[in-house]
Amino acid sequence: MKLDQVLIYGMGLMGGSLALAIQEKYPNAEISAIVRSEKSKKSILDKHLAHHVYTVVESTSIQWNEYDLVVFSTPVATLLEIIPSLPISGETIFIDLGSTKQTIVDAVDKHFNGNQHNYISTHPMCGSEQTGPESAVPGLYRDKLCILTKPKMARETVMESVKGFWESIGSWTIPMDAKSHDETLAYVSHLPHVVSTILVNVAGNNKTTMEQVTSIAKPITGGGFRDMSRIAGSNAEMWTSIFKENRYFLQNSIDDFIKQLTEFRNLFLEEDGLEPSKIHSIWDLALKQKETIQKTK
Amino acid sequence: MKLDQVLIYGMGLMGGSLALAIQEKYPNAEISAIVRSEKSKKSILDKHLAHHVYTVVESTSIQWNEYDLVVFSTPVATLLEIIPSLPISGETIFIDLGSTKQTIVDAVDKHFNGNQHNYISTHPMCGSEQTGPESAVPGLYRDKLCILTKPKMARETVMESVKGFWESIGSWTIPMDAKSHDETLAYVSHLPHVVSTILVNVAGNNKTTMEQVTSIAKPITGGGFRDMSRIAGSNAEMWTSIFKENRYFLQNSIDDFIKQLTEFRNLFLEEDGLEPSKIHSIWDLALKQKETIQKTK
Repeated sequence: MKLDQVLIYGMGLMGGSLALAIQEKYPNAEISAIVRSEKSKKSILDKHLAHHVYTVVESTSIQWNEYDLVVFSTPVATLLEIIPSLPISGETIFIDLGSTKQTIVDAVDKHFNGNQHNYISTHPMCGSEQTGPESAVPGLYRDKLCILTKPKMARETVMESVKGFWESIGSWTIPMDAKSHDETLAYVSHLPHVVSTILVNVAGNNKTTMEQVTSIAKPITGGGFRDMSRIAGSNAEMWTSIFKENRYFLQNSIDDFIKQLTEFRNLFLEEDGLEPSKIHSIWDLALKQKETIQKTK
Repeated sequence: MKLDQVLIYGMGLMGGSLALAIQEKYPNAEISAIVRSEKSKKSILDKHLAHHVYTVVESTSIQWNEYDLVVFSTPVATLLEIIPSLPISGETIFIDLGSTKQTIVDAVDKHFNGNQHNYISTHPMCGSEQTGPESAVPGLYRDKLCILTKPKMARETVMESVKGFWESIGSWTIPMDAKSHDETLAYVSHLPHVVSTILVNVAGNNKTTMEQVTSIAKPITGGGFRDMSRIAGSNAEMWTSIFKENRYFLQNSIDDFIKQLTEFRNLFLEEDGLEPSKIHSIWDLALKQKETIQKTK
């Protein structure tokens, strides 16, 4: 993939880290960034993440075709507003880092309206509770999964180039259709974020817990709570967008969760509900499925 | 505290790590262990965790008063069966590492029946998804919280000695009454373990997720799921015991969780339920409470 001119539209942690990864692998690439705030612009220039930085206000008429690669690193809702303005033809390759795929692919299909195009939707799975360009690190994408979703009319050659690009900066890739992506991500990413956030709020709402917590200088919690709350409350703006985009599957996953938790809770009401065999069967299943999902066995 | 003779009753990860910590700090201490299986006995001897190891079968008549310190590192249910056999008088100090406190303190109060005694219930908060004496490490208790629960008739001097003991091996301590302990732990430890386990089973029960997961060689999950599932399915036997012991508070905490999660889920049904302000208020609260609970701010 030719990478002389790169535009990264939206430069927080993800876009900023991508800029650093590109600088490392493609030292000749000239990187431009578009951001919302003057504060971000300053951070990006201070950290030398991009050669040129423009605020959205300064970028009323973007010459998309001047770039070899355009990367959208914005909330999906913002991206959906931009897609209708992309050029129908040209050599520029467009990718995004969106956390959901169906609404993006639908918007791309609609915009290109049966014409072949160069837009591949990608999802590098390497979020962090950190945000902002000041947290950018060059190795964020190294040895991480990047899911590639090819809209129907995207060129096969572009799919190959995008795959090669992600692999060149150290990611490994798999193709996945938009529906499978959004449903799977609901269960392995979006639901966990909801559950983590609710867990913290449930503990925070318990009077005794908060009395004990505030009575001492050091944390009362162990590694379990720390891990389970790490992603709680992070990046509300991004999650608001994801929840809207993935409403259907996330709602299903929450319903599944409430159903299984209620079944577990009802064991407490049964005479022999907490017999070892019942708890063991739930626990052993989780252990087995965790190994399957995380490929640790 | 005099520590010439120590008995650790039950030697898995916790008991084994305590043995190593004692060896490091009190090189003259002679450590005996009682375990259930020949396999554990062999591991403990191979790893030099204790000087003497007996299986439960070999320990029909324990001379409790031969020891300066007896540490119970068994499931609470097992401990509750042992407490009625402890000597009413003598110099021996008894502690346990139990994850719940009310049933233990009740059993201690009942057994000592108004007599002053040397039993302090303690809870070092440093579990791990690892189990077994082969996972024991000397630093497990270093810079970790140990909660001290003093039964009404336990000697104040013994409370001080036990506090000094834990601090000598690097823990920091706080006193907490049994009810506050069990309620707080339901929210910051027991509920998180339940939620982690159910989360894995919900993902594992979704057909699309498992199709995607099994279609590739590498894990599809990012750091969020990994953290959220770390404690899933671990140590079923211990948790079965904890659930029984802490039935009341854990049930309340699960009910609180289902209530808050259902409220969140119902936002999906409202026209403007996913407006940024609603998600932000839940997310911002979690962020703030997480900082309060973990003392990161």
